[in-house]
Amino acid sequence: MERKKYESPLTLILHKFLFKPSFDEQFIKKFKILNITDLSIPLNEFLTTHCQSIKAVICGGGAPVSIETLRCLPSLGCVLTVSTGLNHIDLAECKRRGIAVCNAGTIYSEDVADFAVGLLIDVLRRISSADRFVRAGIWPAQCKSPLGSNLGGKRVGIVGLGSIGFKVAKRLEAFGCIISYNSRNKKSTAPFPYYSNVVNLASNNDILVLCCELNKETFHIINKEVMVALGKKGIIINVGRGALIDEKELVQRLVQAKIRGAGLDVFENEPYVPKEFLKLDNVVLSSHKAVITRESFSALHELLIANLDAFFSGKPLVSLVKND
Amino acid sequence: MERKKYESPLTLILHKFLFKPSFDEQFIKKFKILNITDLSIPLNEFLTTHCQSIKAVICGGGAPVSIETLRCLPSLGCVLTVSTGLNHIDLAECKRRGIAVCNAGTIYSEDVADFAVGLLIDVLRRISSADRFVRAGIWPAQCKSPLGSNLGGKRVGIVGLGSIGFKVAKRLEAFGCIISYNSRNKKSTAPFPYYSNVVNLASNNDILVLCCELNKETFHIINKEVMVALGKKGIIINVGRGALIDEKELVQRLVQAKIRGAGLDVFENEPYVPKEFLKLDNVVLSSHKAVITRESFSALHELLIANLDAFFSGKPLVSLVKND
Repeated sequence: MERKKYESPLTLILHKFLFKPSFDEQFIKKFKILNITDLSIPLNEFLTTHCQSIKAVICGGGAPVSIETLRCLPSLGCVLTVSTGLNHIDLAECKRRGIAVCNAGTIYSEDVADFAVGLLIDVLRRISSADRFVRAGIWPAQCKSPLGSNLGGKRVGIVGLGSIGFKVAKRLEAFGCIISYNSRNKKSTAPFPYYSNVVNLASNNDILVLCCELNKETFHIINKEVMVALGKKGIIINVGRGALIDEKELVQRLVQAKIRGAGLDVFENEPYVPKEFLKLDNVVLSSHKAVITRESFSALHELLIANLDAFFSGKPLVSLVKND
Repeated sequence: MERKKYESPLTLILHKFLFKPSFDEQFIKKFKILNITDLSIPLNEFLTTHCQSIKAVICGGGAPVSIETLRCLPSLGCVLTVSTGLNHIDLAECKRRGIAVCNAGTIYSEDVADFAVGLLIDVLRRISSADRFVRAGIWPAQCKSPLGSNLGGKRVGIVGLGSIGFKVAKRLEAFGCIISYNSRNKKSTAPFPYYSNVVNLASNNDILVLCCELNKETFHIINKEVMVALGKKGIIINVGRGALIDEKELVQRLVQAKIRGAGLDVFENEPYVPKEFLKLDNVVLSSHKAVITRESFSALHELLIANLDAFFSGKPLVSLVKND
């Protein structure tokens, strides 16, 4: 059997994201790419022989770069993730070894903000619920599907007023919502009331929209205390990461009608979704796709090419993450 | 059997809309109300005896006031509809007899605009589709539900730039959409390009949002020619009335992928929904509920009370329709 040849410097794609054929061509033309799904031998065996050739890896939420992965790649100089979040990369080890980390920057911000607003309108106005109602053929028999609530005047607390949070705020202001936020620090440019404490933010709002990153400080930031403060008419929208919420607590409160509804694009153990959610009518469920549009895919591929170009030619990386 | 007594002046409620108990009490306290659903004898029999007592009727889309109904009500002075649209009322006959017509005014505008935007985000970002995907348990097996498209930069043509259309435009501008419109007349206050012709509007846009009223001029305003002009990447959102669209043509074009998607809150023969729609993944279906929120119900009841108060005390009606 003929053995495939792998030329240095090689870029290893760990993440199985969809490449458009045209981008695939561009990648193959410009760089020496190895997609993990194309490997003809097991990864371990491959790495034993070719680990020195791999200078860059492309990873993502479903394809983490742990300390074990990093140990297998002694020549690695750059980790590129297709996500904005970095919780799947061992940043400390990258820092120790001087490995550059690039993320998706702000290319997804508009799309994620759009999706967050879409989830919120859906939960408040019961759109997915109405769609189920009509598709099930119930309309002719019953007059109306469940009654929703309006957007105007609703108090929306944004958890994490970064690029996405700001865009959510801008959009929701056009619907007449009243915005406030929680963030690590008060933002001098934000014209919205700031709460340094998420419990206080929840007490003073009808809706929480989670747009912050997941890290040690934000793990389960939406816990029982926050949900109690939000109250039984409260709504939670999550376009950040599943583990921002104590999911078991949320399930229980939704089942017991101790919270009005939720719009969830992310879950603690994706693609596992707690089965209790599947039966609830006041929850909108989505498959971690807030970032995914035709247009963001194009932007991502261009960014990856620009970063790899810069990396291999020793120029400044386009979306280098500050890792300190 | 004891016969119920009906005192003049009586207000007849033809429309079976949901009354909140508190409002029901207010109505009963203030006015002599007869709800058609409470009649102990057939309507015809009732009218034969009591027609002279009925001075006002409350109607709606599902409870029309035709010339036949009007003929049964010789003392009628005021028709109040719970809707903004008037296509279920014989306006010519009302005019001839000097019967005042009151509609819901603009109380639903914000809610309908919110719903239109919700439907559009849903169609573009495939939210209901993702919800179906997750609920069906497909996520663990397949990576992602169908790819959506972003909002920013999309060209949105609004058909009917009234109170609702303006609010849709204002909201979509916050998402970076590019707005233009068609209306009977160019609006001097509108900062958007005007197309006097819907075919031209469709040719120059990615999305059409239907917010106009249904009348003889707008019946099937979205016909084959308009859909062809919109093109196969086009999307149609309808929060107006079902008959604004040639529904058979739309069904065919959606099934044949000659149009990208649709978000439909209204249908030609409600509650009948063409069965082809029910199988399509690129369509979001809703049960004529764009106007329906807890808050709009409250506003409606207050408006009905104010109009009836004014009518029975000879004061100017609050939401009198110009009927000429």
